[in-house]
Amino acid sequence: MTEPGTPRLTFWLELASTYTYLSAMRIEALAQAAGVAVDWQPFLLGPIFKAQGWSTSPFNIYPAKGRYMSRDVERRAASRGLVFHMPDPFPQNSLFAARIATVAATHGWLPPFAKAVLAAQFAHRLDVSRPDVLSPLIARLGFDPADVFAEAESDDTKARLRAATARALQLGIFGSPSFVAEDGELFWGDDRLEPALSWVTARMNEH
Amino acid sequence: MTEPGTPRLTFWLELASTYTYLSAMRIEALAQAAGVAVDWQPFLLGPIFKAQGWSTSPFNIYPAKGRYMSRDVERRAASRGLVFHMPDPFPQNSLFAARIATVAATHGWLPPFAKAVLAAQFAHRLDVSRPDVLSPLIARLGFDPADVFAEAESDDTKARLRAATARALQLGIFGSPSFVAEDGELFWGDDRLEPALSWVTARMNEH
Repeated sequence: MTEPGTPRLTFWLELASTYTYLSAMRIEALAQAAGVAVDWQPFLLGPIFKAQGWSTSPFNIYPAKGRYMSRDVERRAASRGLVFHMPDPFPQNSLFAARIATVAATHGWLPPFAKAVLAAQFAHRLDVSRPDVLSPLIARLGFDPADVFAEAESDDTKARLRAATARALQLGIFGSPSFVAEDGELFWGDDRLEPALSWVTARMNEH
Repeated sequence: MTEPGTPRLTFWLELASTYTYLSAMRIEALAQAAGVAVDWQPFLLGPIFKAQGWSTSPFNIYPAKGRYMSRDVERRAASRGLVFHMPDPFPQNSLFAARIATVAATHGWLPPFAKAVLAAQFAHRLDVSRPDVLSPLIARLGFDPADVFAEAESDDTKARLRAATARALQLGIFGSPSFVAEDGELFWGDDRLEPALSWVTARMNEH
């Protein structure tokens, strides 16, 4: 529960994204310090990339950019004392994890689940497309993996994830992490987390 | 002249780039405060984009990304009290300006020339592909535009600009601004200027 009038920011996250790992690990502390309520919203980048004519991550299509990204994330992670390894293969298939994240969002445990998936993938080199990798992450949060898997594979969950991705496209989102203010202002990338928080608190103070 | 042992950074700049405008307007102050010597190096992104299969800026090929970039640069410019307008057309043809910049680099007046070209383009809405726009910028720096134009169109200048662009590709550069340390460490984007300066000063302090 947040008090009425609290500035809000929506954190749009694709679970296979390296920079999203960087943001997920620090957004709660930064948002709390700034007095901002954050709504975590899972979506899929795959269909958005496909709409741009890409069959995989642009980091694979443009190798110089991919090499740079890997080094850049490594540097930023190191400066924050965070373990980081590029997964192999990259990007991982995040469809099932995103469906579970959609379930988690409904039931209020998306932030710890998303952080667990991102840490498994980018710190512990695990393949998060595998149910046997995701299962213990869910169990550790106190839920029954079988129940959660069933809900994740339901038509309703699939439809909600598809709707979220369509909404992301509509909002102009083309990468992850993206941060969207209530007035529609869009910020893209881990390095835009601070400006996004400043944006929503500045707007709030005007009222 | 800089003292031996001064940390150095090469600032690779494409004169048609919006984010390069943001960096050019602040790199001197930041580098001086950090005790870093900066070597400005003009190059062309066009041939590098072409090598990736792009016939124009990715900001044109991917409209969502282009719209976001324009808004992002606008916000960052505003936060620094800098005027910014998207040029029309974008990107401008920067070939002639880059050749003049190559001449300017040889004679030691690249920073003021590059800043003048970028301000003309992004603050004053001028078309910097036009010799009659570039001419007064050169005259204002105390040089004869006709002489400079002749040197800019010489085979030697053209060859040096081509070599610079080839070297940029070799260094893994795929966008502008890029900052390269003496150890080859690459930083891309206006938001990586501070990390690039920290990188070279930290390395220097280790010795």
